[in-house]
Amino acid sequence: MSTKGVAILGSTGSIGTTALRVVERQRSRFHVAALTAFSNGALLAEQADRFAPDFVGLVRPSAPGAGRSGWACGERCLVDAATLDGVDIVLNSVVGAAGLDATIAALEHGRRVALANKESLVMGGELVRAAARRGGGELVPVDSEHSAILQCIAGRPRSEVRRLVLTASGGPFRQWTQAQLERATLADALQHPTWQMGRKITVDSATLANKALEVIEAHFLFDVPYDRIEVVVHPQSVVHSFVEFIDGSVLAQLGVPSMELPVLYALTFPDRVSDTGVPPFDPVELSPLTFEAVRYDAFPALALGVQAGRTGGAAPAVFNAANEAAVARFLDGEIRFGDIARAIESALARLGDAPGGSREAILSADALARRHVQELFRC
Amino acid sequence: MSTKGVAILGSTGSIGTTALRVVERQRSRFHVAALTAFSNGALLAEQADRFAPDFVGLVRPSAPGAGRSGWACGERCLVDAATLDGVDIVLNSVVGAAGLDATIAALEHGRRVALANKESLVMGGELVRAAARRGGGELVPVDSEHSAILQCIAGRPRSEVRRLVLTASGGPFRQWTQAQLERATLADALQHPTWQMGRKITVDSATLANKALEVIEAHFLFDVPYDRIEVVVHPQSVVHSFVEFIDGSVLAQLGVPSMELPVLYALTFPDRVSDTGVPPFDPVELSPLTFEAVRYDAFPALALGVQAGRTGGAAPAVFNAANEAAVARFLDGEIRFGDIARAIESALARLGDAPGGSREAILSADALARRHVQELFRC
Repeated sequence: MSTKGVAILGSTGSIGTTALRVVERQRSRFHVAALTAFSNGALLAEQADRFAPDFVGLVRPSAPGAGRSGWACGERCLVDAATLDGVDIVLNSVVGAAGLDATIAALEHGRRVALANKESLVMGGELVRAAARRGGGELVPVDSEHSAILQCIAGRPRSEVRRLVLTASGGPFRQWTQAQLERATLADALQHPTWQMGRKITVDSATLANKALEVIEAHFLFDVPYDRIEVVVHPQSVVHSFVEFIDGSVLAQLGVPSMELPVLYALTFPDRVSDTGVPPFDPVELSPLTFEAVRYDAFPALALGVQAGRTGGAAPAVFNAANEAAVARFLDGEIRFGDIARAIESALARLGDAPGGSREAILSADALARRHVQELFRC
Repeated sequence: MSTKGVAILGSTGSIGTTALRVVERQRSRFHVAALTAFSNGALLAEQADRFAPDFVGLVRPSAPGAGRSGWACGERCLVDAATLDGVDIVLNSVVGAAGLDATIAALEHGRRVALANKESLVMGGELVRAAARRGGGELVPVDSEHSAILQCIAGRPRSEVRRLVLTASGGPFRQWTQAQLERATLADALQHPTWQMGRKITVDSATLANKALEVIEAHFLFDVPYDRIEVVVHPQSVVHSFVEFIDGSVLAQLGVPSMELPVLYALTFPDRVSDTGVPPFDPVELSPLTFEAVRYDAFPALALGVQAGRTGGAAPAVFNAANEAAVARFLDGEIRFGDIARAIESALARLGDAPGGSREAILSADALARRHVQELFRC
């Protein structure tokens, strides 16, 4: 049996390193065909030595000499890796808007895209779906929530799905008052209760902006209207999401918080393969499982994002870009936690009716939203 | 679209009346082709008037004149209803060993059997599977736990299943001490915390004998070895069971305790149809969901039954018959709660190595076990 070639975009990040462990365990089925990283040339070099991919790309070397001869560089290397001959599956775990072009290119080339870059769908949902139709590519989610939904739906037609219920840990501020939230520090925001992730997504989990991105992503992945996608807070992060069917039945996928399974399943879907990377499941040990209503007032980014999804056009791209720009400022210690949602709201008020419909329109709205946020917080 | 004919065996019981509600809601897809009841001729007559089936059978009229002219009678009417022309689906909700022959006959005639009579599989698992192979019939579970497992597995090959975890409410005596259990009354045993069911199965839920029957049933339905079928106590009865797959993923089916869905799904499997009979699912309202280890010492019937399953041959039939006989005595107020498990243990010690392999061997072991229990408690 020949093994499938996997291109891992963002190989030095949290999902990327998980993917390399998965491929290593499943080397009878998969091999690493391409690796790209943003700036961490040292770790990328280790990975390249270990997995001997055909293609290595470093988007922005952190220092002169951080790359190696033979490596590609610049943003273009993402698309090059995604469309390389011998790549069957593109695991796109690039952070942020930079992942969009690679997703579209891979789908146009008929590849499976294992999508951890939710911005691809948030910004360019219609474009991405059109690319898949054109090129015959296939989109499989890597987010734990969407992987759970896919596993619950697998094999059944869309017409049997009534409702999706995404679970949210609630983040570190689940029980904080509005007043406390205003004073939340960066260190507070980075203390995620259940998941170990990158800094940007960890802040998004604290604002619940991440859950808004996931609602939009779910809308495009599963073709379910927004009024049938709900969010429920589940502090233990054991139930990864629910699917309610038209007969009233509800399925859920569960597990100890770990990205091993969503990454593996995105590679093997619709099949399952024997694997030991997922922590054992013991319901007694994980008991109790609790569920709470979302505090929409305390976490305005969630409703803003879902509303942007309903608005459509470039509004989701504006939401995403404003959030990215504001979170970058927050990570740099320049703005307060509550400013993130205020920046999003302001950007959507100004730019929320921007048209989508083309890559250029979306990237333009993205740029305008970022500029809007910069100006909002100019000293 | 022509509608499918459903024979409902045990139509005046808890599952039977649920099935009639389901068929009534789904009358564009199903019609009642046959009805049988054990002794409740008055309710059967009402049902016959309402649904106008081609065939009506009353096994044992409770009084002279309880039947009507044109009705069949005697145990044979179960098989006659199951094999009637125009019957596509046999919902077998007969209580106890009497259901076995109808299950086998229906499968031999290529029918789908929606099985609520777990004794069919417990007593005659091998015979039932052989009948399905011979006749091309299909077995679909109606028990909520097995329906949950089927929904989680649906469409995926058996080779991808690692482990089944059946949930048990724990019954009314979940937290009772051994000493309290010895003094448990019939009234105590009939207070099931989450499910409204018949008296016999309610007592089985209190002893956990019911869960042993379900483990054996799961073994035969899903072809999973006993060492990969576990039981966990889940007092809320919201998670109806878990399936763990070979990649470590776990799926569960959830819902407010209600038999509407398992009955409906057994009729429509593998498809789902729009239905309003299942109570709405709200995880916040159902929170928290808790899980506990089974207290095997306090509920010896469970381990005895699972061990009988492992032993094979006629041992499961002996377990089932001894339990039926003892529960009947308990329901009549003649023996104590703790006597039920003692009767099972005694019968298995005496008869547990009886051979299976044929209907006659199994029915003989069944009769011997019943006689053994009668003699055990002779005044």
